[in-house]
Parts: sequence; C-alpha cells; structure tokens
Amino acid sequence: MTRPISFPEDGAQRRKIYLGDGERPDLRVPFTEVLLGDSPSASGPVPNPALRLYDASGPGSDPEKGLPPLRRQWILGRSDVEEYEGRPVAARDDGRGASARDGAGLRGSTQWRAARSLPLRARRSPSGKSVATQRHYARSRVITEEMRFAALREGVDPEVVREELAAGRAILPANINHPESEPMIIGKRFLVKVNANIGNSSVSSSIAEEVDKLTWATRWGADTVMDLSTGPDIHTTREWIIRNSPVPIGTVPIYQALEKVNGSPEELSWELYRDTLIEQAEQGVDYVTVHAGVLLRYVPLAAGRLTGIVSRGGSIMAAWCLAHHRENFLYENFDELCAIAAAYDVALSLGDGLRPGSVADANDEAQFSELRTLGELTEVAWRHDAQVMIEGPGHVPLHKIPENVALQQQLCHEAPFYTLGPLTIDVAPGYDHITSAIGAAVIGMHGTAMLCYVTPKEHLGLPGREDVKQGMIAYKIAAHAADLAKGHPGAQDWDDALSKARFEFRWGDQFNLGIDPETAQAFHDETLPATPAKTAHFCSMCGPKFCAMRISQDVKDYASTHGMPVSVAVSQGMREKADEFREKGSNLYVEPGV
Amino acid sequence: MTRPISFPEDGAQRRKIYLGDGERPDLRVPFTEVLLGDSPSASGPVPNPALRLYDASGPGSDPEKGLPPLRRQWILGRSDVEEYEGRPVAARDDGRGASARDGAGLRGSTQWRAARSLPLRARRSPSGKSVATQRHYARSRVITEEMRFAALREGVDPEVVREELAAGRAILPANINHPESEPMIIGKRFLVKVNANIGNSSVSSSIAEEVDKLTWATRWGADTVMDLSTGPDIHTTREWIIRNSPVPIGTVPIYQALEKVNGSPEELSWELYRDTLIEQAEQGVDYVTVHAGVLLRYVPLAAGRLTGIVSRGGSIMAAWCLAHHRENFLYENFDELCAIAAAYDVALSLGDGLRPGSVADANDEAQFSELRTLGELTEVAWRHDAQVMIEGPGHVPLHKIPENVALQQQLCHEAPFYTLGPLTIDVAPGYDHITSAIGAAVIGMHGTAMLCYVTPKEHLGLPGREDVKQGMIAYKIAAHAADLAKGHPGAQDWDDALSKARFEFRWGDQFNLGIDPETAQAFHDETLPATPAKTAHFCSMCGPKFCAMRISQDVKDYASTHGMPVSVAVSQGMREKADEFREKGSNLYVEPGV
Repeated sequence: MTRPISFPEDGAQRRKIYLGDGERPDLRVPFTEVLLGDSPSASGPVPNPALRLYDASGPGSDPEKGLPPLRRQWILGRSDVEEYEGRPVAARDDGRGASARDGAGLRGSTQWRAARSLPLRARRSPSGKSVATQRHYARSRVITEEMRFAALREGVDPEVVREELAAGRAILPANINHPESEPMIIGKRFLVKVNANIGNSSVSSSIAEEVDKLTWATRWGADTVMDLSTGPDIHTTREWIIRNSPVPIGTVPIYQALEKVNGSPEELSWELYRDTLIEQAEQGVDYVTVHAGVLLRYVPLAAGRLTGIVSRGGSIMAAWCLAHHRENFLYENFDELCAIAAAYDVALSLGDGLRPGSVADANDEAQFSELRTLGELTEVAWRHDAQVMIEGPGHVPLHKIPENVALQQQLCHEAPFYTLGPLTIDVAPGYDHITSAIGAAVIGMHGTAMLCYVTPKEHLGLPGREDVKQGMIAYKIAAHAADLAKGHPGAQDWDDALSKARFEFRWGDQFNLGIDPETAQAFHDETLPATPAKTAHFCSMCGPKFCAMRISQDVKDYASTHGMPVSVAVSQGMREKADEFREKGSNLYVEPGV
Repeated sequence: MTRPISFPEDGAQRRKIYLGDGERPDLRVPFTEVLLGDSPSASGPVPNPALRLYDASGPGSDPEKGLPPLRRQWILGRSDVEEYEGRPVAARDDGRGASARDGAGLRGSTQWRAARSLPLRARRSPSGKSVATQRHYARSRVITEEMRFAALREGVDPEVVREELAAGRAILPANINHPESEPMIIGKRFLVKVNANIGNSSVSSSIAEEVDKLTWATRWGADTVMDLSTGPDIHTTREWIIRNSPVPIGTVPIYQALEKVNGSPEELSWELYRDTLIEQAEQGVDYVTVHAGVLLRYVPLAAGRLTGIVSRGGSIMAAWCLAHHRENFLYENFDELCAIAAAYDVALSLGDGLRPGSVADANDEAQFSELRTLGELTEVAWRHDAQVMIEGPGHVPLHKIPENVALQQQLCHEAPFYTLGPLTIDVAPGYDHITSAIGAAVIGMHGTAMLCYVTPKEHLGLPGREDVKQGMIAYKIAAHAADLAKGHPGAQDWDDALSKARFEFRWGDQFNLGIDPETAQAFHDETLPATPAKTAHFCSMCGPKFCAMRISQDVKDYASTHGMPVSVAVSQGMREKADEFREKGSNLYVEPGV
C-alpha cells in the first residue's frame, strides 16, 4: 500500500524518506528510515529489514524564506474558503517592546510577507459558516488529504482517523492559514504526541533564537510547538515561527493581549481579545489555549491552596475577574470565540487555569470544578464544529494520576487530554524533566493524547537550546513508554529492532536506532574509544574476556544448528553440548575486532 | 522523643545533625537539616520550622584511615560472636591483575588492616549457630541497636522495624565485620531505597576512583552500594570500599570467583565459591547476590528469547551448567551457603539470572520459572535465619510492572523486592537513567523496597563520576515519587516545604530543599544572574512585570486579612476587592529586589 518516493540522503544509515499512498502524488509523508546491518547466523548473514520511524522534523528550510505551502492546494481545492484582506497589523501587535527595537520598525506579518512575495490575504470560512474544520469534514464523512496524511504517518486506515475526529476523540490541528504544516493527529488511539514550549520573555531571547529553538525542537521530535512569547516583537516572532514550522503551532492569545495593555490584566476586554484571536488566526496559529473555565466563583477555591494559581493564563483571568467582579469574559463570549476559531480551523485547547502547582494541590476542588466547566465548553465548541482538546496538570503524585484522566475523559466526553507533565514530586528543581517524564509516561498510558514537555529549567528559568533537547528526549521516552503500555500496534517493533542489534553487538545499528545516536556513540567511545570496539562482540560492562550476552547466543546457536526447538535442547543434546563446551574452552570468548 | 545532639556545620542553611533516642548516647542518627526563612504575611514574618531529611552520606573520612567502627560495641555487647583468625589472603584473591600491578605486591585486607592498626581477626557466630543475624534477633523479640537506629531514621517505632524483620518483609543488612555501617532497613513499609553500582572492570578504573565513587554515590543519597569490580585488585578495592563505607556494601561473589579461574566459568566449583564467600564475609560484605535460581532446566527457556540471558551472573551459572550438564552448584549447596551467610549476617540477594534484557522478553516463562525457585530458596534461607531479598528485572514495559511485583510478593512470601530499574523502553541508549526511572517509580509504588540505579551509561560503558550523580538523582526522584504514591508518612512534608518556599519566592530555601541545590541555583542564575533576583518576588518565566503566583497570593492575603474563610471571600468582599484592585493598579507587580 505504501511505497517510497525519494531518499534525499541516500547512502546514510539514518535518512529521511517520503511514502505516498499510491493515489495522490502530492501526498508525501515523511519517515526516518534506519538501514540495518545483517544478523550473524550459522548459515551466514541474515538481512534485517529497514525500520521506519515517525518523523516530525520537517523538510528543513531557509528561515528567511519559510517552508513551502504543502497544504495550499488541498485547502483551495475544497473551494469552501474565502480570501480576504486581513486586519491591518498595528504597532502594538508587537507588544511593549516594539518601539524599543533596533530601529527597523514594525517587522510584522504584512511587511514580512510582502518582502517574500507571499500572499498578503488571509483565508477563512465564509461568514457564519464553519465548513473549513477537519471536524466538520469528518462529520460530513469526507476524508481530507490531511486525514490521509495523518493516517499514513500513523499506519492506520484513513477511516480510523475520520471516525476519531468525527467523534471528537481526536483533533487534527490545521489552520487553513498555516499551509506549511505536515498534518498530524492527536488522540488516544494514535501515537502519544509531545509538545515543546518555546517563546521569548521580557528578560531574554531574540527572534532568531526562537526560530532556531523551533527547528531544534522538531529535530528532536516535537509534534507541536507552542510559542509562549511575552517579550518584544511578539507578532513578528510568531510570523517567523509559523512560516518555518512543519508542525502545528499553539499559542495563548491572552499573553499577547496582556502585552497590548502594558501588562495590566484589569484593562483586558473581550474586544481586545477577539481582535488578538483574529490576528493570530489570520497568521496561521493552529491551536490556542483558552482559559475560559476560570470562573469567578472558582477563584476563591484556589486561595486555600498551598500554591494558589500557578497557570499564567489562569491568574490573568482571575485577576480580571477580581478587578471587575464580573464573570470571565472568555466564558461569557465563548460562542463567538468558537465561531471565530472554527472559521479558520483553529483548534481550541481549553486551558486548566486552576491546575495544581504542587502535589499538595493535586485533584482538588478548584481543579475539578474547572474541569467540569471545560466539559460544558467542549460541547459548545463541538456545536460550532470547532476542534477541542483539554489541558491538564501540572503536579500530580503517581497514585492520583488515574483519577485525573478518568475524570477528564468522563466530564469532557472523551475529548483529547493534553497534559503538562505532570510532575510527580516537587523537590527536584533542575530535574523536572525527569520528575515529570515519570508522570507523563503514566498519564499517557492511561489515555492522555499529548504531553507538554517540561525542561530542566522548569521553575528556574527559560529553557535554552540544550534544555529544549533534554526536555524533548525525556518526553519522547515518556510518550514511547506510554505507546508500549497501550499496546499501540507496531510500537514495539522499534524496541525489538534495537534490542536485537544490541544482543548481536551491532553497535552502529544500536546507535542509529536510538533516540539520540550521537550521545549513545559518544558515551560508548568514552569507555572504549578504539575503532575495533565498535564491531567488537563484547560490551564494556564485562570487558573483552567475558560477556553475558555471548553465552545465551551460544545456547541459541546450539538449538538452531541442531534443528530442534530450544525447549528440548537440554534433554536431547545437553550432554553433547557439555563436551563441546569443554573442548572449545576459551573460544567462547570473542576477542575485540574478531 | 528525638533531640538534636550536635550541629557540625552550625550556621549553614543545609547541615548535618545527629538525633538520639534520649536513651543511648552512642545512638546518633544522621539527618540533613534545612533551615528555612520566614514566610511573609500581613501581620509580619512567620517562621518556618526546619526540615529534616534522611541522610545516607555518612560522617566523611580520610580514605586512608577508614571510618570509625560505629557498631563495634553493639556487636560485641551482644556476646554472641567469636573472633577468629580469618582465612589467609592469597595472591589470586586480587584476581588476574594482581601480579601485573605497580610492584606494591598484594595490598589485601590483612596488610591493609595491619598498616592501620585495625583488628586482624574476623567475627562470626560460633560454629553451627546463626545467632548473629538481625532476623534472628527480631524473631527472638530482641530490638537491637541497629533496629533502633533504623527506626529513628525512618521515623517509626522500633517495634515496627522488628516486626517487619521477623516476618521477612524487610532486611537490615549489617555484616558483623562491617561495623562502620550506619544501619538502614529495606522493606515495603519503609522509605524506598536506592542502590548504586560501582566497581572497576578489566578495561578501566583504579582503586582510588572506586572509593571516590562510593563517597560520591552516598553524597547523592545512595542507601547501599554494590561493588561489582571484575578488574585488577578486586580484593583490595573491596577492602578500601568497605572500610570507608557508611552504607551496606553488596557484591556478586561469583564475579570474583570467576577472576580466580582466569575467566573460565567451567572451572568454577562450589569449593572455590564457598572460599570466596567466606573471604568476602570476613571482609564485611553486607549482602551478596546469589544466582541460585538459574537451574539447568531453565537455561533453554532463554534461548527462544530476543535477548537471551543478559545477567552476567546468570550467564556465568548457565555456562557452568551447560559445560558440566549438572545442576547449578549454588542451588545444590544452598543450605551450606545460607549457613555461612547467617554466621556473619550477610544478607542474601537472590539474583534474577534470567531477567529480561528487552521489553520483548519481560514477564516470560524463563523469568517467572526462576522466580518460583527463588520463592523456594527464600524459605530455605529463612530456616537458617539468613536475611533475604529478591532481585528483579531489568526491562519491563509499564503495563507489565504490576504483575511482576504481585507475583514476586506472592511467590517469595513478601520478601523485599529489589529491582534494576526496570527500563520501560529499549530505544534510548544514553538516557536509560530516565527510561528506567519511570519504571522504578512505578514498581516502587507497587511495593518494591529498593531500586538499583541505572546510569546514562547503561549498555554503553562504565559509569564515571557524573554518570553516578545523574543515575542517583534520577533514582532519588523515582524513590520519592513512590514514597508519595504509597502515602508514606511524612514524605510529602518535603514537597510541601519546597512548594511553599517556591510560592513565596524564597529562592534560597527552594534551592536548599532541592535534591541538587547547586544545579538549581546555577540554572536560575543562567536566566537571572543578578543578586537581587534571588530575593525577587517574581520568577524568570513571566518576568518582573507579571507573575502568576502573585495574583493568587493576593487572593489569599485578602481572605486572611478579612478574617474569613477563603471560600466566602468572593461573595462577601469581592466588590470591595475589585475596587481595591483598580486603585492599587500596578502595585500588584513587585519590582526586582523590592
């Protein structure tokens, strides 16, 4: 059914390939293919099939140009969207820092696009309709190119993708103004996904750094990236990120709205927020976190907590509610918000503004009250055919994780769960990628569809390049641990291929199959730097003279050369084997390079 | 009940203290005490009590002298052991490398002790008796000083320690020839413990490096250390390690026995093994891994596996069984082995020689067959009053972990479980401290008593100093996550103290309460290096102008200054609060250093 289209890095042991579905030539789905060496056997070398891995790294690009608009023809081909002159970009869209910049003036989307001859017009569903969402198509029994693409990536039938989307159990974030993205699906029946947060703040980072972090995050497997910028050039940074992103981009629009009112939450309004949401939807943001469940009456529930409100968006909305003694304007205007989101196919990620900030506050009344409201809002969004997922904690000790997922699935009608960690303990600042990878693996096993990574800098500072890598790797580990535990079809093939390579001392294959080949090889070389060691039939743990794996290989070889099931090898041939063993003597131990 | 005895590092924010039980002046139990700053409140600063943490780091020492023999008087005071001239140390005790050394000749225990005026004689129970084991005392309803010490460390009644030991649900590894050790207990009703493996191999490391790794491992919280040396100077390395170790030392005697026969497993014999066991028991080894469950008939079960036999000890015994077509000599002579172990109170750690080496092989017939045999052997050991724990895997995907623990507890009559990881996936060489910390936390939650750490170098090379630290920290995280999940009394106090400090921006307290204060502070300083930032009431994530935690502090303050339960703060005072909020304006945001 699938066939390779091209091998851009032919000859390499680990390379990107594209597979099609044999029907549509413009459906080119990327995979990482790892070519493997032969296995030794008594009857000569036995070839091992190449292994294909899910690949989120994108085609690579010149950041100044942006990525090619892969989905453009698919979107236009459906003939159900209108192009229009988008809202004019204003100076304040770039936040408080805009005027303090290096004199280049506004570098917003209009100028950026004009300079690159990109279309200046935005796309949306015709007024009053929401025909352009993947949920709408799925419910109309239409299998889009995006669904086919995601199905090929996942190795499932496109109908499975459509069904899960139609039922609301999955989302396919794909803003029609972000045609550069490679479609992917988030839902519990699919591979567990990982989101990486990037973004500048008022105390650090530049635009170029953020684009570099985006590319770096997807290189390590980020399935989506959230731009949480709060610093200068907020609009322009996002434009650069979206135009260069092969993965869906998420944001928290209230962060930008707050910058537009100089950081004073009480000056926020629905009108300002709506304008910001449209601004971001026109740019191509694929999903937005909306803290519409932080209701006025829930705010005091957080006051009795050990760590109050730790969600930035949650505290902004709480501050607004307190300042005006009015209900959350996102909740009050949620219908209109959904209609805007649906017009661009911006997926809604219902934020957990009252998520616990410590294990002490996990699964408390504040958190679960908000969750109940998110369940109601899910139904509202679905009525608009907007795609929805639900954000989750945070800090949760291991034994409280199952209840958290079960309640989310029940209250939110199986809408996909998207959790931050959770951190399972509070006492390891500097290592929260690990404290939370533990929780992420377990919450993933219980049905969470996407994990938001946590870096070693959590609680301490903004992640740099190395932190992004460490966070991503910890979370790819957690996601794969969950895939295995869920019995995801094909997930274990990867482990089996690596373990077989390990057992057969195919060191190069072991490195190439690993999540981080370079680090694995570097660690190996620290103990055994000589080149022959890479093909040596021993590992450094036991040294060249004895190796645990050799003896079991010997048992296996014996059984297979005598053509008997291994279970009867002892009774039929052990005596003979014993003699042979003694005769061979030290031949059991293979010397380096032999 | 407990009272501080001394403050060796008085004045420091994080310092070692010793607590006694008010009865025995020589019972001085170490703790790490973290002194905390005041919490701000509307009515002025409120002091926070100091937090005391379990401390395995030992008193520190000059490696050339060794540690003071803390337990010597307790052991002699029981008047139930005899001193005798130990077996003479032979050149081959130092393994194949002995003759190739730097010309210093044998530096074995006899010479080492003589040079330091330490007793040359060994202690044991009188022939034919096993009166000296902690299990024996516990079953005789005697609460030893060791039990009191362990109970104080754990914060439980000494009778709980005695009961668990008597029932076989816990062990207190305390060889009477290792009086330097600080007693600790391993059992599911106590804090989850972590073991660190160190040891040289034929391809790397020196004696001094290994002693340094021991001290380094306990500095990061290792509760026991296993010396897995297989390289040169094996006897002498162990002597240095034991004399300098405040924690129980474990070994795998078959490794040394194999060195004595130049690495040829078929030349091993019960007599050689017994002599090696006595050699190590006289030196003071506290527990030994014994692969007595690798029966001849189980060996072929491993041949059908993806990764055969990966336990080094398991494969040595399998090789011996194959070579001689005879039953495992450790199994055949297990009664005598137990008698020797009991005479010195060497605890037995029944090795899982057939543990899975990949997720594909987890929970298979080979593994569970051996486990059934370990259950039988547990009962044999208990008849000798030897202390026993059971080793476990290895590589196990998350969903198969609960069955693993449940079966071990059932088949082995609740003897403590001691697991290596397990790794939950196979595809992250270079990051197996993380793949396995996930499994370790979950298996700990289900009742595993001690976790054997895995370092980033697993499968790739021998761990160096930094690997030991990274492995230890990942496992202290896993152990604490399990303690929280089990609802261990007092475990959450630590998290709550840190989370409170975090919420109140007491940065110094947050660092000092962390598992690795230096790293936490260094990470913080990368983003906000200026000194005022350490006392700033904001964090670098949101910058100085807005902070999520501030707003919830504000809600809390409001409720408390108005003397009302927080739950009614909204209904009674929200309008007033709203006015106040608008008036205060930007005072909500605290500037750096203010």
